[in-house]
Amino acid sequence: MKTLIVICDGMADRPIKELGGKTPLEFAKTPNMDKFAKGGICAILDPIAPGIRAGSDTAHLAILGYDPIKVYTGRGPFEAAGVGLEILPGDIAFRCNFATANKDNIVTDRRAGRITDGTKDLAKTINSIPLEGVSYLFKESAQHRAALVLRGEGLSFKVSDSDPHFAGKKVETISPLDDSPEAAKTARILNKFIGDANKLLKNHKINAKRIDEGKPPANTLLLRGAGIVPTLEKFKDKYGLSGACIASVGLVKGIGSLCGLEVLDVPVDIKIKDSCQKALNEINNYDFLLLNLKDADNAAHDHAIQRKVSVIEEIDEALSIFSGFIEENYLVVLSDHTTSTEYGDHTGDSVPIMICGPEVRTDDVEDFGERTVAKGGLNRIRGQDIMNIMLNLTYQIEKFGA
Amino acid sequence: MKTLIVICDGMADRPIKELGGKTPLEFAKTPNMDKFAKGGICAILDPIAPGIRAGSDTAHLAILGYDPIKVYTGRGPFEAAGVGLEILPGDIAFRCNFATANKDNIVTDRRAGRITDGTKDLAKTINSIPLEGVSYLFKESAQHRAALVLRGEGLSFKVSDSDPHFAGKKVETISPLDDSPEAAKTARILNKFIGDANKLLKNHKINAKRIDEGKPPANTLLLRGAGIVPTLEKFKDKYGLSGACIASVGLVKGIGSLCGLEVLDVPVDIKIKDSCQKALNEINNYDFLLLNLKDADNAAHDHAIQRKVSVIEEIDEALSIFSGFIEENYLVVLSDHTTSTEYGDHTGDSVPIMICGPEVRTDDVEDFGERTVAKGGLNRIRGQDIMNIMLNLTYQIEKFGA
Repeated sequence: MKTLIVICDGMADRPIKELGGKTPLEFAKTPNMDKFAKGGICAILDPIAPGIRAGSDTAHLAILGYDPIKVYTGRGPFEAAGVGLEILPGDIAFRCNFATANKDNIVTDRRAGRITDGTKDLAKTINSIPLEGVSYLFKESAQHRAALVLRGEGLSFKVSDSDPHFAGKKVETISPLDDSPEAAKTARILNKFIGDANKLLKNHKINAKRIDEGKPPANTLLLRGAGIVPTLEKFKDKYGLSGACIASVGLVKGIGSLCGLEVLDVPVDIKIKDSCQKALNEINNYDFLLLNLKDADNAAHDHAIQRKVSVIEEIDEALSIFSGFIEENYLVVLSDHTTSTEYGDHTGDSVPIMICGPEVRTDDVEDFGERTVAKGGLNRIRGQDIMNIMLNLTYQIEKFGA
Repeated sequence: MKTLIVICDGMADRPIKELGGKTPLEFAKTPNMDKFAKGGICAILDPIAPGIRAGSDTAHLAILGYDPIKVYTGRGPFEAAGVGLEILPGDIAFRCNFATANKDNIVTDRRAGRITDGTKDLAKTINSIPLEGVSYLFKESAQHRAALVLRGEGLSFKVSDSDPHFAGKKVETISPLDDSPEAAKTARILNKFIGDANKLLKNHKINAKRIDEGKPPANTLLLRGAGIVPTLEKFKDKYGLSGACIASVGLVKGIGSLCGLEVLDVPVDIKIKDSCQKALNEINNYDFLLLNLKDADNAAHDHAIQRKVSVIEEIDEALSIFSGFIEENYLVVLSDHTTSTEYGDHTGDSVPIMICGPEVRTDDVEDFGERTVAKGGLNRIRGQDIMNIMLNLTYQIEKFGA
């Protein structure tokens, strides 16, 4: 028996006046989810704990059974892993943006006009910077995104971002966040690195061309999300299951990768329906598959209420292909965290979850929504309960005791 | 006010097709449990945590308020205590079987024909084996069952079983399970002990007689469930309550004994009705009593669906004698873990629990079952919550704070 977890990223929401006090999930027409809920068992779920505002990264870690409070120090390591950088436990990693700054070092575009071409060349140039006593890896990702990893003795992730997080603000000098010599050293190295990078980028032919074309040059690097690469027990060792992950987002791919899941390649702009179809095809090769569907979260971050409703209806339609799968296997559908479309960011409200498959104790929830599932047969669970519940349902957990 | 906890061992189950998708508890006619549920407060309960497959031993420890993750290393200590061996914290203990092996040391009967007579003589002979540097105690129990305790410096419970767990397989050599000198020493001592025991058993007059009578001789010892005897705070010291335990099963008696409950003597084959009557009589002498009813679990391990239904109906009838008791005292009825009758073993699904007594906030559950109680007034709790809930209801818990 296999387990397929479909994470509808940021699908859960708060009631919205424009939708008559319903959430987008409650408002959307979701006949397939409702049918699954009717034959399954439901609950409200706290990704981390009640009220805690989870990120997608910490929520996914918890859902995979890892304790984010123990293993998570920042998004950097997961971004770096998602970009395909070969990272090791103890490395210090950062999410980076290619950005545009003016002569006063004020950020005019945090994404350098969402640059698409030439970032590989820029990265190559940046990788020529000499750094005393530490080695590093810098790699470009889609558009303006990149990642940086520092490796060496006496480093710390306790350093601030250089990213001011808003256009119109000056690029920040990186500061140590504690009194340790390691944090001071790391901040010093990074400020020199960014200074050197700025000089090389300023004169780079890619940027000369961009300026000629009237595009904002990628003339500075913004660093954020410092974290230390944790030692994570590999999924296969932890559970004895082969597992894979389908996600279009680097951060989630990075989590899958660091947890030892096989990260299956999909286009960044893959359609929801195609993601589901790929999951259904690929699950044949694994005991476990995690599928992340990002679109509802994107809509919520953009405050796009109607778009979020449409995305949820699109997800619902796509999920119908799993109807046969659940006759002998288990399907879990949940949102990894609530993303309030009115607020435009994650909130710490619980999320709905349902588990469908041959031996669940079905409950009388007939309509999959944030509120209906509170009367579900699993009551209230946490992200870190999911894997144990699924190992139990699929007869793959050892007995503790006699 | 007194607390009586009735543990219907392995009563909870998964939905069974043969019962129209109901569980045995849902299918059985249980007017008394339903009446109690109607006047009580219900919940789903995770013996350890969601999804975790509890044993009877770890579940009972949790229900008594002890953390099995901290105190449980194996069933051996509880089996030994249940047999009446005087054990001390730090002792290494094993569950043993008298078994039959052929000349190639292949187990032909793991229970030596469920031998009943002569095991006391066999045990006396075994206790004559000289062992270097450690003392030990070996004691027979009902039928083929026995327990062994090692006491001394430099021992470890990190050793494998000699029991191959299936007839037709060779008796295993005990191996250390880690690299410690203690585990190596313990394995060496045990292998010598078993070798010596085999020689003594082979020529024992009891076995000569058995062979004459065409019965399988008890010519080898199978060891399993190594554990270190934990230091458990006595129930009376922990809660300030006098407590007793009624159980026919050695493992549960051992848990009661190690927790400092008075283990009341009952016949191994005591009827459910008589167990309940004894509990009702004895609770007069104590603040707290735990009653274990084993029969539903036995039926489930035997895949006997109809028998499990009958046992549950028998339990229901027997529970009626507590109707008066709950006017001024508290009755807790629960299953210690789910035992799937189709699977024939424990699963990690939640179990139903109800608490009945004068001051509970009654809910609207009118039918005691695995699914109905999910809408109960206690929602979802854990094994280790029970004692605090009962101490609270009976006004026997200190205020934490001002």
